[in-house]
Amino acid sequence: MISQMKVRGLMFDPYNNAYILVLRDDDSSDMLPIWVGKAEASAISFALEGVSAPRPMTHDLMKSLLDTVDAKVISVVLTELKDNTYYAKVHLGYEDSEYSIDSRPSDAIALALRTSAPIFAREEVLRKQGADELGQWLENLKPEDFGKYDT
Amino acid sequence: MISQMKVRGLMFDPYNNAYILVLRDDDSSDMLPIWVGKAEASAISFALEGVSAPRPMTHDLMKSLLDTVDAKVISVVLTELKDNTYYAKVHLGYEDSEYSIDSRPSDAIALALRTSAPIFAREEVLRKQGADELGQWLENLKPEDFGKYDT
Repeated sequence: MISQMKVRGLMFDPYNNAYILVLRDDDSSDMLPIWVGKAEASAISFALEGVSAPRPMTHDLMKSLLDTVDAKVISVVLTELKDNTYYAKVHLGYEDSEYSIDSRPSDAIALALRTSAPIFAREEVLRKQGADELGQWLENLKPEDFGKYDT
Repeated sequence: MISQMKVRGLMFDPYNNAYILVLRDDDSSDMLPIWVGKAEASAISFALEGVSAPRPMTHDLMKSLLDTVDAKVISVVLTELKDNTYYAKVHLGYEDSEYSIDSRPSDAIALALRTSAPIFAREEVLRKQGADELGQWLENLKPEDFGKYDT
């Protein structure tokens, strides 16, 4: 089983001096918080806000490279959660084949947002996350913190 | 005219809270300091030190994507220096053609180091830099700060 996730918010977490990217499955309302660094957060927020930088940012370059060779990001998938670390794959369509490439979730999502590719999470990732204490953190957030981004 | 540049050092600049990537043309001894952010500096230092992260870093993903479609980074070129901002191009070989793609120098160099592609600078970039006051900053550096990296 796999669920399609939407980016619902990007927040600063002062306790960990990091950013939290919140993904949500709109069907089940399952949430997935992913801690990302400042650079990753800014790569994602630029895409969310449709900001175009004067010079291409890293994931803009990645997209340009793929466009040049006519390769297409079909989807990105959060495949695994192990020791509080998420793993992801970028599914790349090229010629008549599909390739699956290892990635950090933050890169995969920054790329997906720029290429309008869907973001999926495997069920076991959502299930594992549910067992963590992250939910508690999220419960303390105000509802208005979510839903800032509709993608 | 174009000069081949080698990465000679990566230093922290406490005055600007940024990192300085120092490129050098071994033939002419011309130096080119490029200020880069923390994320870019770490992308470059990982490649310089041959450190392999447990999960692919952003430019490792970029390389994987290019490898998947059999595209090759032929070279990267620092093309312009305008208002203290450098501009660069990634020259990509794909099928029988060469494509030139806009990039920030830090991304271009992080990618070049991972793909063993040569780094070039146009003469006007080196000349312009010479006219700046950056040289003075560099003069104050100790010789042992350079030459940390031989690429």
